[in-house]
Amino acid sequence: MATCSADLAPLLGPNATAAADYICNKFSDTSFAVDNTYLLFSAYLVFSMQLGFAMLCAGSVRAKNTMNIMLTNVLDAAIGGLFYYLFGFAFAFGSPSNGFIGRHHFALRSVPSSSFDYSNFLYQWAFAIAAAGITSGSIAERTQFVSYLIYSSFLTGFVYPVVSHWFWATDGWASALRTDDFLFGSGVIDFAGSGVVHLVGGVAGLWGALIEGPRIGRFDHSGRSVALRGHSATLVVIGTFMLWFGWYGFNPGSFNKISSFYTSGNYYGQWSAVGRTAVTTTLAGCTAALTTLFGKRILTGHWNVTDVCNGLLGGFAAITAGCSVVEPWAAIICGFVAAWVLISCNKL
Amino acid sequence: MATCSADLAPLLGPNATAAADYICNKFSDTSFAVDNTYLLFSAYLVFSMQLGFAMLCAGSVRAKNTMNIMLTNVLDAAIGGLFYYLFGFAFAFGSPSNGFIGRHHFALRSVPSSSFDYSNFLYQWAFAIAAAGITSGSIAERTQFVSYLIYSSFLTGFVYPVVSHWFWATDGWASALRTDDFLFGSGVIDFAGSGVVHLVGGVAGLWGALIEGPRIGRFDHSGRSVALRGHSATLVVIGTFMLWFGWYGFNPGSFNKISSFYTSGNYYGQWSAVGRTAVTTTLAGCTAALTTLFGKRILTGHWNVTDVCNGLLGGFAAITAGCSVVEPWAAIICGFVAAWVLISCNKL
Amino acid sequence: MATCSADLAPLLGPNATAAADYICNKFSDTSFAVDNTYLLFSAYLVFSMQLGFAMLCAGSVRAKNTMNIMLTNVLDAAIGGLFYYLFGFAFAFGSPSNGFIGRHHFALRSVPSSSFDYSNFLYQWAFAIAAAGITSGSIAERTQFVSYLIYSSFLTGFVYPVVSHWFWATDGWASALRTDDFLFGSGVIDFAGSGVVHLVGGVAGLWGALIEGPRIGRFDHSGRSVALRGHSATLVVIGTFMLWFGWYGFNPGSFNKISSFYTSGNYYGQWSAVGRTAVTTTLAGCTAALTTLFGKRILTGHWNVTDVCNGLLGGFAAITAGCSVVEPWAAIICGFVAAWVLISCNKL
Repeated sequence: MATCSADLAPLLGPNATAAADYICNKFSDTSFAVDNTYLLFSAYLVFSMQLGFAMLCAGSVRAKNTMNIMLTNVLDAAIGGLFYYLFGFAFAFGSPSNGFIGRHHFALRSVPSSSFDYSNFLYQWAFAIAAAGITSGSIAERTQFVSYLIYSSFLTGFVYPVVSHWFWATDGWASALRTDDFLFGSGVIDFAGSGVVHLVGGVAGLWGALIEGPRIGRFDHSGRSVALRGHSATLVVIGTFMLWFGWYGFNPGSFNKISSFYTSGNYYGQWSAVGRTAVTTTLAGCTAALTTLFGKRILTGHWNVTDVCNGLLGGFAAITAGCSVVEPWAAIICGFVAAWVLISCNKL
Repeated sequence: MATCSADLAPLLGPNATAAADYICNKFSDTSFAVDNTYLLFSAYLVFSMQLGFAMLCAGSVRAKNTMNIMLTNVLDAAIGGLFYYLFGFAFAFGSPSNGFIGRHHFALRSVPSSSFDYSNFLYQWAFAIAAAGITSGSIAERTQFVSYLIYSSFLTGFVYPVVSHWFWATDGWASALRTDDFLFGSGVIDFAGSGVVHLVGGVAGLWGALIEGPRIGRFDHSGRSVALRGHSATLVVIGTFMLWFGWYGFNPGSFNKISSFYTSGNYYGQWSAVGRTAVTTTLAGCTAALTTLFGKRILTGHWNVTDVCNGLLGGFAAITAGCSVVEPWAAIICGFVAAWVLISCNKL
Repeated sequence: MATCSADLAPLLGPNATAAADYICNKFSDTSFAVDNTYLLFSAYLVFSMQLGFAMLCAGSVRAKNTMNIMLTNVLDAAIGGLFYYLFGFAFAFGSPSNGFIGRHHFALRSVPSSSFDYSNFLYQWAFAIAAAGITSGSIAERTQFVSYLIYSSFLTGFVYPVVSHWFWATDGWASALRTDDFLFGSGVIDFAGSGVVHLVGGVAGLWGALIEGPRIGRFDHSGRSVALRGHSATLVVIGTFMLWFGWYGFNPGSFNKISSFYTSGNYYGQWSAVGRTAVTTTLAGCTAALTTLFGKRILTGHWNVTDVCNGLLGGFAAITAGCSVVEPWAAIICGFVAAWVLISCNKL
């Protein structure tokens, strides 16, 4: 805004400064409107991933556990709403603070400000519950309900916010936004949260799985693994498509703004970067899906729809960190590598 | 527009008026584009609630009635499309008229105008069929199909439009937009339709339920209530998440415009109010869901997913009237109270 | 942009040209941001139709084939992602070229440009996989999996792109954008692809069905037709609603831009045309649904939900070509006629 006025003022006639202010203010209004529209609808898309997680989990567990897993998915979103509002957003983005945890904006105090509007909170909340949603799947079919409530509150209200502070807050210790040195002065770029969301969700899930042990019937008497089939491939596919749909909010939405230009008046601007991110996301997922399809066919002799879905989602998770900076061809390589990593891990 | 030109004209040089007109016209174009994008996508979200209603109803009835209830949900949308186009929109928004019923814009005559664009019609149609969708659930499992068709036409073409005229048209007798006195000069504010949509739908449903009597098997010989379990909790959860998703069109979308500024050049504008509405909606629903979870646990000893879903939707319905004006903390109180009202009513 | 600067420059004071450039550049930036937001979210909606196709197909086949049909739906999207990126977009829009096939932009080389941004690619990819999705349904329950992979790659990477080049590329032989003569100088207008998408998908499906022959059990020993019931009306309804939802990306989205004005400063602009397209789409679908409901009732004596869904989708497919230019009342006639065509074809 200030820059815009300073640039325009000397250019105009008699009341040049006032005229420039007037015009630039209106451009500023327009940008706020466009950017908030963009961010809010992106947040709604990210929210729709909860439906995806619920369906994916419901389809992947045995029928008797559907009810339980669905309940945890609804509650992740509800608990996350309260705890992220009360504490989470403050811990994550309450700068100025220290490198480890934020300390402002509890219960949205002083929001909106020039840094954060309500749309930012809503968008980040949808991310927090996505992290919780990822974990639900990992500890499916074997969790005490009350433990789950405690875990979910703790994850969305504390663990995830603290990690996201490290990487995404202006003063997080590993943030690319810090001016001082980390990793040779560059900080860590985790654009849309491969690490912050998926790794946190995944590690939480891994610990949960380790603590709780395998599902009853997962291994036979001699310790050999027994495949536990999910009860509905249809639900797995609905879930996968919903997650794909929602990922278009997750990755391209992580720009937060779409109206920023790079060179004013040029066709190439942040809108192109947003679009490219949608394209790289798509290509990484598609490549990983096809790689998994053929890889598994060679290894097992079957064509399998749930493997393809898992491959697709693995490709999305893998591209999430770099989605905003890689070229489309590189996204294809990323998806290809991710699929083989996934296939190898499945062999374990 | 006129204001903008009048403000800018004295500020500029030689052909000041023409220059100001030119610039302000372009800002006007931009606002139309942004606001229509915002309203159309909100309308699409509200429309997606039909899918939510269909799933919620399908999951809540016994399997034998799924077919019937799904058909009514598809037909609500289709019948509403024709009747709201032919009559409904005219009855609701056809001002200047009287306080009770509108009388212009039948079959979208004189639309678009400076007051209404096609996007307004589409958005209002999505509301009308939501009101019909709410009722479908109330009279589930016991309605003659032909009666349903007549009812649905009448509701979307006449009843709902007339009530929405009262509260939302510029000359509705209870409208907050009227200049003269009602309720001490303030009129009724029902921002997104707690009364206009949910109460109309609910009252229609209540009368339907009273007229048709209880479902066969709902009470035993001695008149005691028998719980009729829905056949699929999975569908109930899909439906709930879809309704949640769609509510982001319903409540924040009810501003109709997002590009209005409060103080030009300030970060705080209508976009913030839209975002806050999304946040209050979320918090009211989340609080109601958790309150119902624990309230029901205390009363019945069970954790129950369908109760949580009902609580969540009750919280959303309760906040819908005030969603645009309350602070987030107040939304939490609203959700809490709504949940206890719901729990109490369920005890009846 | 150039026009804008030329218009504004003589109007302003001292540094008039520079001032006009500055202002007009910022308007250009805003338009890019708004139009890309609009197009990307439209693309996401079109993508969500894949979920619709998957559910529609899954519900319409017998339970044993659900797995197979779901797999083809996921793979359509994945294969389409790669092949449309590598070849398809180039064949379709790689102008300057000849009237039959494009030859630039392989693997998105030279994109973004002043003609195409990433959002255009994403939007067109979503169309290509929709064409593939339509065909999946036609050859359901009887296709060798490997044949399907080859067919799907060929359709999204070659057939569909070539046909869309003919009608939609600036130098396609039947394009309305060509300056020289075809069909008395007007070219063919197929706004959102009744022919390009639905007819290509349909013809591909028809040939597939002819080649593969009827499903086992489709005709009895004496050659009479046997109705093969789908296994889930619920899935058919979910699928139909998802397709309806996605169609709001498909038809109104086909304008590609929403911020273009017709007369600057007027309420009537491209945003109105976009809205009207959403309205005509809705009305055609609704009319076709109701016509099919009553038509089938008269002919068969039953009220049938899957017939209504098919009628609805038929109405949408029929309006897709002219959705942007017809008035709402004409859309109703279009839907009515489409439904009777569909009912007649079903009698065959």
